[in-house]
Amino acid sequence: MAVKQGRFFSSKIVSSCDEAVKEIKDGATIAVGGFGLCGLPENLIKAIEHAGIKDLSCISNNAGIDGFGLGKLLRTKQVKKMFSSYVGENKNFEEQYLNGSIELELIPQGTLVEKLRAGGAGIPAFFTPTGVGSDVANGGFPIKFKPGTSEALIASEPKEERIYNGKRYILEESLTADYSLVKGWKADEAGNVIFRKSAQNFNNDVARAGKICIVEVEEIVPTGSIDPDCIHLPHIFVQKLIKCDHYEKPLEVRTVANEGGGRNSDIFKGPAGEKRKRIAERAAKNIKDGMYINLGIGIPTLAANFIDPKITVTFQSENGILGLGEFPKEEDVDPDLINAGKQSVTVVPGASYFSSGDSFAMIRGGHVDITFLGGMQISQEGDLANWIIPGKMIKGMGGAMDLVGGAREVVIMMEHVAKGNSLKVLKQCTLPLTRDRVVSELITDMAVFRWDENRKMILTDVASVSSVEEIRRFTEAEFEVADELGSY
Amino acid sequence: MAVKQGRFFSSKIVSSCDEAVKEIKDGATIAVGGFGLCGLPENLIKAIEHAGIKDLSCISNNAGIDGFGLGKLLRTKQVKKMFSSYVGENKNFEEQYLNGSIELELIPQGTLVEKLRAGGAGIPAFFTPTGVGSDVANGGFPIKFKPGTSEALIASEPKEERIYNGKRYILEESLTADYSLVKGWKADEAGNVIFRKSAQNFNNDVARAGKICIVEVEEIVPTGSIDPDCIHLPHIFVQKLIKCDHYEKPLEVRTVANEGGGRNSDIFKGPAGEKRKRIAERAAKNIKDGMYINLGIGIPTLAANFIDPKITVTFQSENGILGLGEFPKEEDVDPDLINAGKQSVTVVPGASYFSSGDSFAMIRGGHVDITFLGGMQISQEGDLANWIIPGKMIKGMGGAMDLVGGAREVVIMMEHVAKGNSLKVLKQCTLPLTRDRVVSELITDMAVFRWDENRKMILTDVASVSSVEEIRRFTEAEFEVADELGSY
Repeated sequence: MAVKQGRFFSSKIVSSCDEAVKEIKDGATIAVGGFGLCGLPENLIKAIEHAGIKDLSCISNNAGIDGFGLGKLLRTKQVKKMFSSYVGENKNFEEQYLNGSIELELIPQGTLVEKLRAGGAGIPAFFTPTGVGSDVANGGFPIKFKPGTSEALIASEPKEERIYNGKRYILEESLTADYSLVKGWKADEAGNVIFRKSAQNFNNDVARAGKICIVEVEEIVPTGSIDPDCIHLPHIFVQKLIKCDHYEKPLEVRTVANEGGGRNSDIFKGPAGEKRKRIAERAAKNIKDGMYINLGIGIPTLAANFIDPKITVTFQSENGILGLGEFPKEEDVDPDLINAGKQSVTVVPGASYFSSGDSFAMIRGGHVDITFLGGMQISQEGDLANWIIPGKMIKGMGGAMDLVGGAREVVIMMEHVAKGNSLKVLKQCTLPLTRDRVVSELITDMAVFRWDENRKMILTDVASVSSVEEIRRFTEAEFEVADELGSY
Repeated sequence: MAVKQGRFFSSKIVSSCDEAVKEIKDGATIAVGGFGLCGLPENLIKAIEHAGIKDLSCISNNAGIDGFGLGKLLRTKQVKKMFSSYVGENKNFEEQYLNGSIELELIPQGTLVEKLRAGGAGIPAFFTPTGVGSDVANGGFPIKFKPGTSEALIASEPKEERIYNGKRYILEESLTADYSLVKGWKADEAGNVIFRKSAQNFNNDVARAGKICIVEVEEIVPTGSIDPDCIHLPHIFVQKLIKCDHYEKPLEVRTVANEGGGRNSDIFKGPAGEKRKRIAERAAKNIKDGMYINLGIGIPTLAANFIDPKITVTFQSENGILGLGEFPKEEDVDPDLINAGKQSVTVVPGASYFSSGDSFAMIRGGHVDITFLGGMQISQEGDLANWIIPGKMIKGMGGAMDLVGGAREVVIMMEHVAKGNSLKVLKQCTLPLTRDRVVSELITDMAVFRWDENRKMILTDVASVSSVEEIRRFTEAEFEVADELGSY
């Protein structure tokens, strides 16, 4: 349980980040807000670098990039252990992890933020569907490698599994921190904080999980000037408050509206482009009027280009947006507004922003109708592997395990065959699973398969460029053929 | 897991409450927002009464009053079972429960809202400190009486208990509903909802726990006219939306600022008043600059009159307010702004409003420094009984079990001896416990006791009108006497 110690009775406002972090000791656990480089407490992180505080355990969704955000503290080797869902943007960190010089506990994004929410809310443990049927549940995932080997020195523990209403759940324990480092937009002098757009992300739940919460903001306004119905973080959760004058706010992926974009984009040109187009066009047919949709990074995003213009749907982004719009015009690019792929975006009228905790509650609670995700391998029972290639690519699962554990329908979009003609639709996946028995539908450039309630795999559609015979040749999994086959 | 069924693709706006509830079937489970009579979906409840839907299971913090809110459906016997934390305001309901004609599952207020939050968030179960060391954990509490007897026909089950970091927790399962009935303030045409002041209370978590969520509001504004950073309930959670023209909004306890109030109030006159004053004055000395405080209903509230005017403290009210102020002037009374005692109140500059879920996360997570509560009996190990007299008074525990399970310091304020000179400070409590081994300090009109870390009871202060001898005479519990005794 997070018990706040050391109240600050006169004023919570401190004069500098150096002043704010000076009491943090070597070996402390810090929880850090932000998603990618958005909403990062960048000045507090710099102050920790300057103070040279060592042996830190850091709870943060991402590890920054080399030279910015937590990447700074990783480069200077001030961090002993990271708790993250996705570290793929930081090569320097990946190296340190693979050569055994740093510990990494990979935690699904929604579980990570729920652990923080629970820590701040006095809940020591909770059951969740996220991570079931994966190494998160089974354990044995390397937290630290034996230097110079691919053997685990420390491995993750298996989780307790329990059935509720016929579904499987695993028990996860909460996380708290000695200090929370938070980036707000505005605060009042009493310490009430509001966030801006998708820069809220992890900050709100991080703030509540710390024994001492330090908040940096762009502006401090007089107490009473923020609408009491619009305060995101009430001052009871804030112990130190600093106004900072300088923000870099780098954008990881600057995407702007492109007049040559949409259905005619270059991304749909050439043989690979045509395959992508076929997959995206077919996937768009699954999208019905009124649906709430989460589109994964990569091919899934492309489906948006082919949605029937007569229908209205709403896109959710797991970093805290409902109502994603197009990419912005150059002049409207806003580093406080990115999607889960860290791209600059806009929102539509009627959009809303919320915390990562609320966002994954939305996903896990079955409120999102459909999620489209990419895949690396699919088994004939609908097991999905799409997050890791051991020894080669260890970026983290991000929100993928939460999405497949929570959305009402999981549709995988991928090329049928990998480079070098190696098969991807297999009897059994050889890669570690994202989740077992979870795929509702698989859409490739050759075929569409659905799984029935008994996890029987059924071919339902054949691409116009393919045939049942060709599909059998490039599919190791055994499947049945529907009585009436569609075409696309 | 709450899975939304039956999306409403064209518009979520329906023309009347009758229209909105017509699909609800006999035997449905409905979760209903509101706290006391504040923020009640009063028009939807009326429509259910008119529709004559029967055998309902109702999840609602309170049971309304006879003739208003859920009291309507209870009077017409449309309700089969209630899930509530406090039903004390409805005599008709209490009668039905005691004579065995209705089922009641009493659930601590914070646990109730967390069960709804979890239900909406895809969390099937969680561990909580609330209810440990009480019949909530131990089971055996009557859910339904055998008609005409005081024997339980159905009794509550014991809960699984587990230790985390040396502290005890119990496992609670989540709640979902077929329908959520919610009262918002404003919505936009897309279905985004904002609440007003303390009328948010249970509404936000109730909304998310329903398969179909029906929201009534006072105003519908064009989509895009609510700040996306200030939306309390994003439209993904809303399936039907109705604008209602008429609201009664009755106030349960109209309290107004009284010029003769404060330290010189009539409540402190006479022999009983003097005792109250002595207790309240002494309790106020425990309040330090910067503290966050929750004051229970009754004698604890009186402590606020005696706080050193040189210090600044913040009062939390568990229905969703941080920064309670004085009672309002007559013209400022607002039925959307009440405290946990259902009294009309005001707030101070820098106050904030939030959901009941967030409020109890704040309490349970150890963010409230101190809670002052009334007591019926205290044992020598600091067990507290303050919520029920079996067979006589079954109102519910409200938030008391959450407050004692979560606040950093639990101070009990009560008269030392009950009417008829029966003792209240005992070796063992004879009444059912609110929690065992939990009281930090007991302040009575005769004495102050503290409990040390080994749960040894120590007399620390003797009231100027009393003596150690008199205290021993009126105290069954065995206690030690501090080396230096204070006086008050």
